Amino acid sequence: MTTVLDQLRELNRTAAFNRWAGFEVVAAEEGSASLRLPWRADLGQYVGTLHAGLMSALVDTACGYAANTVGGRVTASHCSVSYIAPGRGPSFLATARVVKAGRRQIFTEAEVHDERDGTPVLIATGQTILVPLG
Amino acid sequence: MTTVLDQLRELNRTAAFNRWAGFEVVAAEEGSASLRLPWRADLGQYVGTLHAGLMSALVDTACGYAANTVGGRVTASHCSVSYIAPGRGPSFLATARVVKAGRRQIFTEAEVHDERDGTPVLIATGQTILVPLG
Amino acid sequence: MTTVLDQLRELNRTAAFNRWAGFEVVAAEEGSASLRLPWRADLGQYVGTLHAGLMSALVDTACGYAANTVGGRVTASHCSVSYIAPGRGPSFLATARVVKAGRRQIFTEAEVHDERDGTPVLIATGQTILVPLG
Amino acid sequence: MTTVLDQLRELNRTAAFNRWAGFEVVAAEEGSASLRLPWRADLGQYVGTLHAGLMSALVDTACGYAANTVGGRVTASHCSVSYIAPGRGPSFLATARVVKAGRRQIFTEAEVHDERDGTPVLIATGQTILVPLG
Repeated sequence: MTTVLDQLRELNRTAAFNRWAGFEVVAAEEGSASLRLPWRADLGQYVGTLHAGLMSALVDTACGYAANTVGGRVTASHCSVSYIAPGRGPSFLATARVVKAGRRQIFTEAEVHDERDGTPVLIATGQTILVPLG
Repeated sequence: MTTVLDQLRELNRTAAFNRWAGFEVVAAEEGSASLRLPWRADLGQYVGTLHAGLMSALVDTACGYAANTVGGRVTASHCSVSYIAPGRGPSFLATARVVKAGRRQIFTEAEVHDERDGTPVLIATGQTILVPLG
Repeated sequence: MTTVLDQLRELNRTAAFNRWAGFEVVAAEEGSASLRLPWRADLGQYVGTLHAGLMSALVDTACGYAANTVGGRVTASHCSVSYIAPGRGPSFLATARVVKAGRRQIFTEAEVHDERDGTPVLIATGQTILVPLG
Repeated sequence: MTTVLDQLRELNRTAAFNRWAGFEVVAAEEGSASLRLPWRADLGQYVGTLHAGLMSALVDTACGYAANTVGGRVTASHCSVSYIAPGRGPSFLATARVVKAGRRQIFTEAEVHDERDGTPVLIATGQTILVPLG
């Protein structure tokens, strides 16, 4: 039987940027999804911490996967991210959940933690609005 | 004489992710900056158009450079992006400007166009708040 | 002949909060709309300047009217506002425009100026996403 | 002894718009605050449900109070709100909490529920960034 997690992993493999970045779908059920990203130097900005664009990509992608579990094919229309602390690794975990699934729009939110020394540190929060493609 | 454009190009070279993605600083003056990103397949999501995370990265980076022209070293605290149309290339141009430079925060905004066939198509708009690091 | 401006003024009169606050539709054409709000003490917060909630209400309402000129009946799904400077009056002008009118969503943006001494001061910028109700 | 709740109630009384709207501080402790707003017709928009501007004002004000419990005097710099369902009353409850209190910025989030028939319905979610005034 194909699970929601299997489906999202399959979907994740079809996105070239996700493969390059190293996004891994680590959990999914109806209404939520989690992504892990191992740190490596290519993902950094000037001072060598995680690039803000990758924090946004984690929020956007995890939210899209959470929305997908309830709405099927979706496309993001808006994403806002607060950058709360620098990301140093060794890995990052983005957890997203559906706040409200409407017919026209799915509202989602996500948190990104730096999995530092087994003590997760919140580094970003975000919200994404997705439109079901029907 | 080192210009603002030279300085931002130098800064841009120090960011590993910007080098990988292929961000090029193409214009800068006091209060504004523009980035170009040539399309390639690695930058794509499921259906092969520009990944939303890269639209966000373009907004965030162009806004950060615009803020840098008036505020020196800055760090982004919030970024919101509206995804308006799919990005197909052959290249993308992000233009950012400072809306208000305060002592504690610099408010900026950006547009991202797909430079399609010489007829630019607006694909994303965004706003970033940056904090001067003093 | 009933103009777009007439229609929005009629719509504006049907909103109880807009009547109380004193919102006046001062301009409208296809894709844009402007609202004026005269200052009075009831609109203030702790230190006696314009309440942030009213800056948001001006952004949201002006954006809704701009969207209405191209999309008919709409409802707001998301609004973000940057508070750039305190609003002191004697009046405020919110100008909104449609950035992209899609079938499923209309993207808009607005600026709010304090009409101080004939020298407008930008006090807020914002973006609103509206959904056409068909 | 003056509690955090007493202090916020005192602060709330000094804001003319809060008095007019009818905001009541119903709970507060370090890092969180809740506001109640009883419905009345003056707070409505075209179709007679709660005006989006008041949803934003509830988010902004509750977030400001939550930030105040950890950061003293603050001013809002950015607020984003998702409008999830119409608000009909008989009353609304906004609950806000501090996500991260930094030296330069305090990140907060809020939910607004319609207290319908004793079965709360989520009508809006939002995030506010506040700057400590020192």
